[in-house]
Order: sequence, then structure tokens, then C-alpha cells
Amino acid sequence: MIAVLKQGATEEQIKNLTVWLEKRGLCVHLSKGEFHTILGLIGDTSKIDPELIEGLEMVDSVKRVSEPFKSANRKFHPDDSIIEIGNLKIGGPHFQIMAGPCSVESSEQILSIAHSVCASGASILRGGAFKPRTSPYDFQGLKADGIELLLEAKKQTGMPIVTEIMNANHLPMFEHVDIIQVGARNMQNFELLKALGTIRKPVLLKRGLANTLQELLMSAEYIMAGGNHNIILCERGIRTFETYTRNTLDLSAIPMLRELTHLPVVIDPSHACGIARLVQPMALAATAAGAHGLIIEVHNDPLHALCDGAQSLTPELFAEVAKRVRKIREVVSE
Amino acid sequence: MIAVLKQGATEEQIKNLTVWLEKRGLCVHLSKGEFHTILGLIGDTSKIDPELIEGLEMVDSVKRVSEPFKSANRKFHPDDSIIEIGNLKIGGPHFQIMAGPCSVESSEQILSIAHSVCASGASILRGGAFKPRTSPYDFQGLKADGIELLLEAKKQTGMPIVTEIMNANHLPMFEHVDIIQVGARNMQNFELLKALGTIRKPVLLKRGLANTLQELLMSAEYIMAGGNHNIILCERGIRTFETYTRNTLDLSAIPMLRELTHLPVVIDPSHACGIARLVQPMALAATAAGAHGLIIEVHNDPLHALCDGAQSLTPELFAEVAKRVRKIREVVSE
Amino acid sequence: MIAVLKQGATEEQIKNLTVWLEKRGLCVHLSKGEFHTILGLIGDTSKIDPELIEGLEMVDSVKRVSEPFKSANRKFHPDDSIIEIGNLKIGGPHFQIMAGPCSVESSEQILSIAHSVCASGASILRGGAFKPRTSPYDFQGLKADGIELLLEAKKQTGMPIVTEIMNANHLPMFEHVDIIQVGARNMQNFELLKALGTIRKPVLLKRGLANTLQELLMSAEYIMAGGNHNIILCERGIRTFETYTRNTLDLSAIPMLRELTHLPVVIDPSHACGIARLVQPMALAATAAGAHGLIIEVHNDPLHALCDGAQSLTPELFAEVAKRVRKIREVVSE
Amino acid sequence: MIAVLKQGATEEQIKNLTVWLEKRGLCVHLSKGEFHTILGLIGDTSKIDPELIEGLEMVDSVKRVSEPFKSANRKFHPDDSIIEIGNLKIGGPHFQIMAGPCSVESSEQILSIAHSVCASGASILRGGAFKPRTSPYDFQGLKADGIELLLEAKKQTGMPIVTEIMNANHLPMFEHVDIIQVGARNMQNFELLKALGTIRKPVLLKRGLANTLQELLMSAEYIMAGGNHNIILCERGIRTFETYTRNTLDLSAIPMLRELTHLPVVIDPSHACGIARLVQPMALAATAAGAHGLIIEVHNDPLHALCDGAQSLTPELFAEVAKRVRKIREVVSE
Repeated sequence: MIAVLKQGATEEQIKNLTVWLEKRGLCVHLSKGEFHTILGLIGDTSKIDPELIEGLEMVDSVKRVSEPFKSANRKFHPDDSIIEIGNLKIGGPHFQIMAGPCSVESSEQILSIAHSVCASGASILRGGAFKPRTSPYDFQGLKADGIELLLEAKKQTGMPIVTEIMNANHLPMFEHVDIIQVGARNMQNFELLKALGTIRKPVLLKRGLANTLQELLMSAEYIMAGGNHNIILCERGIRTFETYTRNTLDLSAIPMLRELTHLPVVIDPSHACGIARLVQPMALAATAAGAHGLIIEVHNDPLHALCDGAQSLTPELFAEVAKRVRKIREVVSE
Repeated sequence: MIAVLKQGATEEQIKNLTVWLEKRGLCVHLSKGEFHTILGLIGDTSKIDPELIEGLEMVDSVKRVSEPFKSANRKFHPDDSIIEIGNLKIGGPHFQIMAGPCSVESSEQILSIAHSVCASGASILRGGAFKPRTSPYDFQGLKADGIELLLEAKKQTGMPIVTEIMNANHLPMFEHVDIIQVGARNMQNFELLKALGTIRKPVLLKRGLANTLQELLMSAEYIMAGGNHNIILCERGIRTFETYTRNTLDLSAIPMLRELTHLPVVIDPSHACGIARLVQPMALAATAAGAHGLIIEVHNDPLHALCDGAQSLTPELFAEVAKRVRKIREVVSE
Repeated sequence: MIAVLKQGATEEQIKNLTVWLEKRGLCVHLSKGEFHTILGLIGDTSKIDPELIEGLEMVDSVKRVSEPFKSANRKFHPDDSIIEIGNLKIGGPHFQIMAGPCSVESSEQILSIAHSVCASGASILRGGAFKPRTSPYDFQGLKADGIELLLEAKKQTGMPIVTEIMNANHLPMFEHVDIIQVGARNMQNFELLKALGTIRKPVLLKRGLANTLQELLMSAEYIMAGGNHNIILCERGIRTFETYTRNTLDLSAIPMLRELTHLPVVIDPSHACGIARLVQPMALAATAAGAHGLIIEVHNDPLHALCDGAQSLTPELFAEVAKRVRKIREVVSE
Repeated sequence: MIAVLKQGATEEQIKNLTVWLEKRGLCVHLSKGEFHTILGLIGDTSKIDPELIEGLEMVDSVKRVSEPFKSANRKFHPDDSIIEIGNLKIGGPHFQIMAGPCSVESSEQILSIAHSVCASGASILRGGAFKPRTSPYDFQGLKADGIELLLEAKKQTGMPIVTEIMNANHLPMFEHVDIIQVGARNMQNFELLKALGTIRKPVLLKRGLANTLQELLMSAEYIMAGGNHNIILCERGIRTFETYTRNTLDLSAIPMLRELTHLPVVIDPSHACGIARLVQPMALAATAAGAHGLIIEVHNDPLHALCDGAQSLTPELFAEVAKRVRKIREVVSE
């Protein structure tokens, strides 16, 4: 960490700050320029809050030299993490497609979609049982019944399932769920993250709508700090000023995250765009950019879907997308 | 709600959609133009998801005519809500200043600050016991001990206290807290909002860093839908591209919210700017724009604060701010 | 256009507004609901400013049903536009790679890069002669001399050239330039756009850093309104809160623009990310998403580049990128 | 400037970079830590492009210690700049209200408004003659005729006038204009800024919709680098995700800019909100936050205004606003 002091900082002020920093276990290297004095702080700065130092009258600015994330950092874990989900793997050379409806609505619906996406190339079944909705008056999901229906689909098709959790108290219901999803709005629900650190099940952590990649990695760090290193990161679109698409899918997050972290990166093109006919080009683009997986909404009857119908593919279209995704994978895996 | 259909929509498609909407209790008014057909939907549209309809192939766009929030809506509750906090009131003509440290650190600290801000014009004591931090390695607050210390300060000074909750399971600890704060990162933690709907204590609901005013009001609606109408809204700065200030305080939220809702609106100039010397001008500006209250960080020793020192005022500076705020109040209350 | 009137709008107000609108050549269809009155405006609404009507006391909101862009609109021009650049074509099935240095620096530099990118698959040579820089103290380009050097490279390699204009008074210098580029910061320099409408040379119009796709299309419309329909749209990254990448490349702009307009869409992965090692994955992703072309920075000596070295590829890396781009093209063109 | 090198940087790489930097007139101070090597660059770094250095393989990150703006920097010019406009002054203790219509429409209109705002407290007349419009089909202003009408109003009332320029070629028409305005969309039209640097007339420079304060100051620097130091900065709202207001007025820009620069800061509450009834609270707030002036739209007949009617006050409301602004000024000037 580097602290740039203002021109007027006195000897005594500098000494006080140095003593305070050294008490926190840091070595302080002082270098004086014509206009500025610079303190280089060597040691474990992860426990020092840069804003605290920046707030001192004598300090002009503070800059972290090392990333604040440790367990998620590729520097300390150079090899790709490979997460196991039943017999499947994701990360490194392993690529998986997760598909299914936005919400689980009925036994017929989820079983029909599950069989269909399984046949056309999806390896993991997705489906919402607990639904975070902006309005308290909107459909909130089938909850525990939804999870039961997913488990039935898992039993019939053999596909592992991924579904979203909104409350740590619900964890017992997720006992047989294979991947627990944390939604974008809960990315910084730190109490939920801590609870997920105490288990060992894979967590699919979605990036918040206006969060940076560093914040996403810090949220992964919360779970990892508890001992659960089975994290799959997911980019699902961020908020921008564009209005034709619901959100803006940040595909540069793929190569950037792959450089910063060893964790696998999955893309959700359905939520990002909110428009079914954009799912195919964005799924192909995500694959070309090096994603470790995709999570795609598929619906057997968009007209009667209770939510998010706009962004769901029919099973026929999904099969076409999955086929072309495999071809792009061949090019990028060469 | 208005649905604009595409040029090519067939008679049968229009009929099917009309039947589907009528089944949901709506009256459908059809009006045909040269290029577009428009469906006007009359009735309780709050339970219809506009994105579901927008997703249909035949639909060009959908527009809500009425706001999706009801209990928080000034149209249905024209008079200002006045929230009672012990003997104090906030809302309508009642203005309050909340002040105190970012985090409760020790008995001496909180008691010293409490006595000091009480003497210089604050009427409610703020202080963090549970601290949401981006990094799992940062100080997370004194938790239950912090609340005990706040209650001791309340006892000595008679000031009601406001402090943040992060987990609905902690509610029993908040039994004697006067106002429960929901932080920006939890604004859309819907499970927490639902839990706060089941109690009757005032809730200070902070706007999320990248959330719209409508989303803030929908989160208030979540609490109100549970029966708790004691909501105080709080603007604390939103994320923009500006980097000199930590966030950008959106003061136009004050007159805009006062028009949209009957709930009181409080401004937090300390978190918004992240710079202590900006707190005074922004506190005065917020007051001039018609805020019902301010929440200001005050610290007796910014050098040793464990967090957020950059944005805290000394008690002397706070006294000066409080004095000038009262003068601005006189002008705007005329 | 649809205007939703407030509940309290009087008969006389509605009549006055109707008369005013009819004078402007519109038919007004009135439909009354329980809570709202809706005016449907039929006719050429492109000359009506929605904000003017929205400003009236009696009006709740106004919504455009048709897009405000006409010449650029695919609805009125269903076939892809194919722009001719010398013997080359771009748009529809025609894909081109533009490559070259950020700035033209010397004869040796531009000739060396030109020969190299020409050999490895670029068909158009890019290079900045006039450079828009945030600081007046930064290098502003070789200006007229830079254009001369580009023309020499064109002569030697036969490649058409694309370079940026910043001032309509410079147009005579661009006489032999093949494609004139409008940079992101000038996307809404309407006087420059009007001047480019008076010529017939292809224009590469870059999207502004915080502009929507509709605004980009309206800027294309400015040029087309003057009679120049040879427009190539270019997405080059938008401003978001992410800091690891300089900007965020919005690849969903590709399928979205292809739906909205008939104009070709080109992607600039170099400026968007600002990091050379992200150029390859983003170039592949852009191709997979259906772009009509790429514009890529290539530098023979990044260490000594006068600007933007961070985002430039070496010629060897460029050759590798071009090869893989062609393979992705094969998959998406099937 | 500080450059943080990566762990693997070799001695030779460091030496090469040091030589390169020293050739550019900088002293290089090297300090080695366990994980990082830091180069402190002392001297005039304003001509070094940080992105160029950041792009080198061996460099982790680069941080400017000094601001890149010089002439606009308060560090080198500690006293407030006071700009003279005829007999009026703005800046330091001098506060002025500019008022008038969005667009000049007719002789009657501009004369009537000019007399009215002059009587109720405005000291400078504003009015648009050249109008930047997103659509080429929208009203573009009366142009030269509009300036003639403003000059007639100036003659009758004695008020200096401020109006927007969009094209440096139009400068001769602005000979008798007192303040030349640069609109938000032209804030980074560097060719226009350079042209305004060659004259000595006051320039009102508006912040772009998605620009930072540093970029605003760099644009001021462009004009000042040419020799024209008569700059008035103007905040007029920035783009955020909020949709109830057109833009978000960033009032923290006032104290922040007053700290960073000696130039006066004026606020435009009309364009920012786009809603006439928000103009009063935001004008009062801007004054309380320490603005040096306001620029407010006033219209004598909002119904027939050709543009921006939504954000214009009637002359009666303007008189009320001006009266209360004066009272707030009294409090903040104490």
C-alpha cells in the first residue's frame, strides 16, 4: 500500500502515522519528493482500511498495490480451480451448459423441460424455486415445493440441479441441491455469504447489477474465508444507460476474471439481455471469449410463463444454440 | 397499463392475449392506428408482470401508467406520514438530526460522542454495531456488545438510537433499539425486508448504491405490505463515474420523493461524499432542498477510528454544522 | 406517440392540447379509463418533442411508439446496407478487419505495420493523424503529415485507409482518405455530423462513452439526413463502474443494432479494454456475436508508442488473432 | 507519478524504463519491497501518458500523484478567480443569477422575459440561439436571428447575455455576446475549446453528461492553455440510472470543485431535473452548497414553448425562487 502525503505534512504528523502503522505490523518506507512525501507500506496490508488513512488531513491519497482478495487470487493459486458437481466438472478445460426455466411452475413443466434440455446438450438443470422480485406483489416462486419438483427432475434425468437461495435459514431445504445460486441482489448480503462458507457445496455467485469485478471477488472471498472454496463466478449483465437491452452483458469479465482468479466463470446471457432472440449470439460470444459454462433459460410455453418469458428460449431453439456453442468451443479449445 | 402491439399482430393473437388478460380481471380497450394497435388495460395491473407481456412476439412495448407501489404512494395517502420515535417525530414539519460515530468502538467513545452531539443539537444517536464490509478481513463491528453500549448511551442522554441490522435472526437483540437501519447493500434483501414488515418499529431504509427511487419505494412497499408503515427513507449517495467523491449525493431525490410518497426523507451526507470537509455544504444543501432530517457521522478522534474516519466530523465541527442547518431550516420553513 | 393524461385534466385542457396537436398534422384518438385518459397520436410524430408535451401540467407521461430514427431504421429499409470502400464491401455477408497503429508516428512505423497487417489478414489500414486527447499537454497527432504517411502506406499496400476527423474545416485534407472516422467524444458534435452529411464518403461513427444505441442511431440519422447513407457503426466500449478494464465492450449492441438498423456494425476491442491481452478473446467474441468487422490496434514496438501502447498487439499476435477470427466466422456464417 | 512494477520485472527491464523516463526529464526514485518494486517519478509528469506506462508488460499499475491540470489548479493559484462580465463580477464573494428561455423564439418572447427576470433579480440574460438536439428533425434554434434578438434585449435591459456556441466558425456572430456557453455535449469537442482559448471572452463551460470533474477541469485547461483564463464552470446534471428525473444534479461538485480549482462554479437546476417544480428546491440547495451562481430557465408561456417547456418556470415563480435564493445566500455568506 502506498500513501501519498500532502505538501504541508509536518515531521510530527508523519512520525505519528508511521508509529500507528508499525503498531499494525507494517514496515514503512519513506521517500520524499519535491512536492510530495510517499510512504510505502510493506507487509500484510489486507487488514488496513485505505479509506481510514485517506481520511487523515495530511494524506492526499492511498493506493493498494496488492489485491485485497487472497484465496480467490490467481497469484497465490496459479492453477485453474476445477469444481466437481456429482460426476461433472467445471473449470479449466471443463465446460458445462446449465439450462431450464426461470421459475419452476409445475411438475409437468419442469419434467418436460428437463428431459428436453438433457437430450439437446445441457448437463445441469436450472430452475427458480425462491424468486427475488422487485415487487412484493409479484410471484415469489413455489419455494419448498419448487425444490421438490427439481429433485424429481434430477431423479428422472440424472442431471444435477442449480437453484437460488435467498435466506440462510432455508439451507436445510437445499440439502440435495447440487449447486446453490446466490443472486445478483444478494451478492453483498454478507450474512448469507458467511453461512455459505460453512458448507462445502458448490456456490454459483452472480455479480451484482452495479458491482465491480473486485467486489465480486471480495464476495467470493467471504465464502472462501469460511472454508468453502467451491465457487463458480457468474456474469449476468450489469446496469448501464442502455435501454434496448435490460442489462449489458460484460463479456470482457471473462478474460479479466480468468487472469485475476483461478475460479471458473459462467455467463448468463438470458437475464443480461432480457430478449430471447439475443440469447444465441451472446451465448456464442461468451463461449468464444473463453467462458467455462453458460446458464440459459428455456421454457416450453413462453406465453404462459409466470415470469421472464421474454428471455426464455423454446427447447428447439435451445438445441440449436447448444449445437453452435459446441462448434465455437472447438475453435477456442484448439 | 398500455401494450403497444406490432404491425403484424394477427386478429387471433390479439384475441388470445385479450382473453388471457381478462381472465386476470382486467378490462381491455383496443384502439387501432395505421401502424400500431394499442391495448389499454384497466383494473388492478399491479399483479401483472410487464416483462411477461413485453416478451410476447406480437408485443412491441408495454408501459405502466400507474406506479407499482401502493402503500407508499402519495396518491392514495396525500398527507405526510409522521413517524414517532419515542417522544420525537419525523416527517411533515418535523426535522431531526441523527449523529454519532460510524462504528461503536468502546464505552468511552460512544458516551463521549453521545453527550457531545446531544448538547450541540442532535436528537437521535447513530452508531454501527453490525458493520457490512466489502472485505471479510475488515472490522465487522462489536455486534451485540455494540448494541449494549448504544443502549447505555441512550440511558445516559435520553436520546433514541438508530443502528443497522444485517440478519433477521438478530431481531431479538434490537428489542430496545428505536430505529432499525437497513443498509444500502441490503435494500433488496427481500427476506430481511419481509421480516421487518412483521414488527412495528421504525425502519430507516437506505437507497442502494445503484438503485432507482422506484426500486427504493418498492423496497419500502415490501415492509409496508407486511403491515409496518413506519418507514423513513434515506438517500446516502449513488454510484456514478465521479471519483473525487466516493459517491454522488442525489439531492433531487428529496423533492422527487416528497412528490411520490408520503414517507419522510432523510439525507446522509457523510457516507455519500466520504470526505469530512464536504459534509457541511451538503448538509446545508439537503436542508435547503427540503429534507426531513440528516444523519451525520461524528467522531471524537478521527485518527484512531477503526473505519470511515475520512467522513467523520469532530464534535466541534458538528456543532457548527447543526447551527447553520437550523438557520437554513428557518428560511425553507417560512 | 401516446400521451397519458393526469386524473384531474379538464375537458378544456384536453381540447386545447388536441387542437394544438392537430395543427401539427396529427390525428388524436382519445380513450378514457377510470384513472387515466390516454391520447393516441397518429401521423408523423418525429417532429414532436415528447418532452415538450410531458412538461404540461396535465400530462403524466408520454411514450413514443415509433423510433425517432427513419433513414437508419430497418423497418423502412429491411435489407442490410452494404458499404463500398474501393473494391471492398462491408455489411451483410461481407466482413473486414481494419488494423494499424493508434497514432501514425513515422514513415517507417506506418509502412512496416501496414505491410505486416496486410500480409496477415487485415484489409483496411487504420491510423490516427488527429488525436483527441483529454489533456491539452498530451501528443495530439502528426495531423496533415500523418495523413500523408497513411496515403503513402495505402499506395504501397493497396489497402484503403480509415482515420479520424475532429474538425469539419479539415475535410479537404481527407480527400483521399477512404473512410472518415468520427470518434466517441464527437458522436454528438452535431455540426461535424452535418458537415459529413454533405459528402458521400463512408463514415465510421463511433458510439460515445455513455451514449445509448438510440442516440448512436440518431447521430447516424444526422449524417443520413444530409444525404450521406454510407455509415458504418462502431461499438468501442462504454463507461461503467468497472475499473479493471478501461471501458466495457457492449457486445449485445451487435445483435441489437442488427435488428434496429440496416447499417453495418464494427467492433473496436482495443480501445474498449485498454489491455492488449484482452483483444483476442474480445475479437473472437465480437465475431461470434455477428459483427461485420473489427478495428484492431497493432503496433510494431509497444514500448515506444506515443500513446495507447497498452492496448496494442504486436504484428505476430495480430496474425494469430486474424486466423482464429476467420475460423469463428466460418462457424457463424454456416 | 508512481509506477508499481510486477514481481517478475527484471533488472534490465527496470533499467530500460528508467532510462526512457529520465530522457523525458524525470528523476526516478526506486524503492524495492518484498512483493513489488515502486518507481517514484519526480518532475513535470504532465506530459507523460500514464496509460502508456501501464501498458508495459512489467508494470502493475500507475498512479498520478499530482493533478494533470495546472492553470485551473487551486494549488498554483490559491485565490478565487473573479470573472468580469461588463460591470458584473462572478466568483469569490460575487453571486449572479442568469435567467431566460431555453430557446429564443421571437422578439416579443425574449423582450418580455428579459424585462421580467431583470425586474425580479436576474442579472444576466440566457437564451439559446443555436440548439444542440439529439434528433436532426427537432427545432435547431433561430441561429443568427436569435443572437440579434438577444442583443436587442441586452440593449433594452442592460443585462449581459449568455448563449451557446456549437461551431468555432460561428465566433464572429458572438462578437457582442458577453459569455459564450459550451454545452455538455461539446465539453470534449477539443477543436472548439482550442478556438475559445484564442479569445478573451468569458466562457461558461458545462460538464458533460457522463464526465468526471477531472475531465471538466481538463477541458477548462484546454481553453486556458490557449490563454483565455475567463472560465466559469457549470454543473447541469449527470447521467445516472434514475429515471424520474432527467439527469441527477451533482451538488457535491460545488464544494469539490471549489477545493480543486479557483474558477467560479455555477449550477443549472433546470436542465438537470427536467421538471419545473424541482427547480426551486434545487436552486436553494445549490446556493446553500456554495455555488457562485445559478442559470435558470424561465418561460412566459410554457404551453407554446418550442422545447424544454417541462423544465421552465413562469416569471412569477422565478421571482419567488430568486427571493428565497437571496435569503439562503445571507445564511451561507455569514
